[in-house]
Amino acid sequence: MPELNYLDILGFLAGLLTTVAFIPQLVRTWNTKSAEDVSLGMFILFILGVMLWCIYGFEIHSIPVVVANVITTILAGCILTLKLIYTFTTNKELK
Amino acid sequence: MPELNYLDILGFLAGLLTTVAFIPQLVRTWNTKSAEDVSLGMFILFILGVMLWCIYGFEIHSIPVVVANVITTILAGCILTLKLIYTFTTNKELK
Repeated sequence: MPELNYLDILGFLAGLLTTVAFIPQLVRTWNTKSAEDVSLGMFILFILGVMLWCIYGFEIHSIPVVVANVITTILAGCILTLKLIYTFTTNKELK
Repeated sequence: MPELNYLDILGFLAGLLTTVAFIPQLVRTWNTKSAEDVSLGMFILFILGVMLWCIYGFEIHSIPVVVANVITTILAGCILTLKLIYTFTTNKELK
């Protein structure tokens, strides 16, 4: 088993935090059934960005980069989907 | 001047998108003066994560990683600050 150095652990922790950060937002959006204050533009740009990070990770053969960004894409995609559902079912303006 | 290859451009575009994604959220929060649906937990975890990415970028001597994550930290920090201000000035529950 390869030994982890300080940099690996730092990168792993950083990736873990920026990935799991979307869990409290998903839980909050699910519980309140509202995402009016959550920016549509932010989630569209962010999801496009993490999808490019997935391709980048695949190209540089970095499994941690691919895994972290696939999970982030799924979490952010769920938040965006909930925002779209709640906006259309309450006839609010999408923005 | 070093020539940019496909991977450099891919990484640059990915970093640009996941960084500028926070601008529409900041603009929206500023305009609506409300960030009730924005998760406190998400922004705390995310800011901690991008701060670790800054240290990681510094350690691996990657200027693009440092620059992208410093900008993201500032943008996400502004959104978190606005959320705290709007929550306390309207006597709402912080969560």
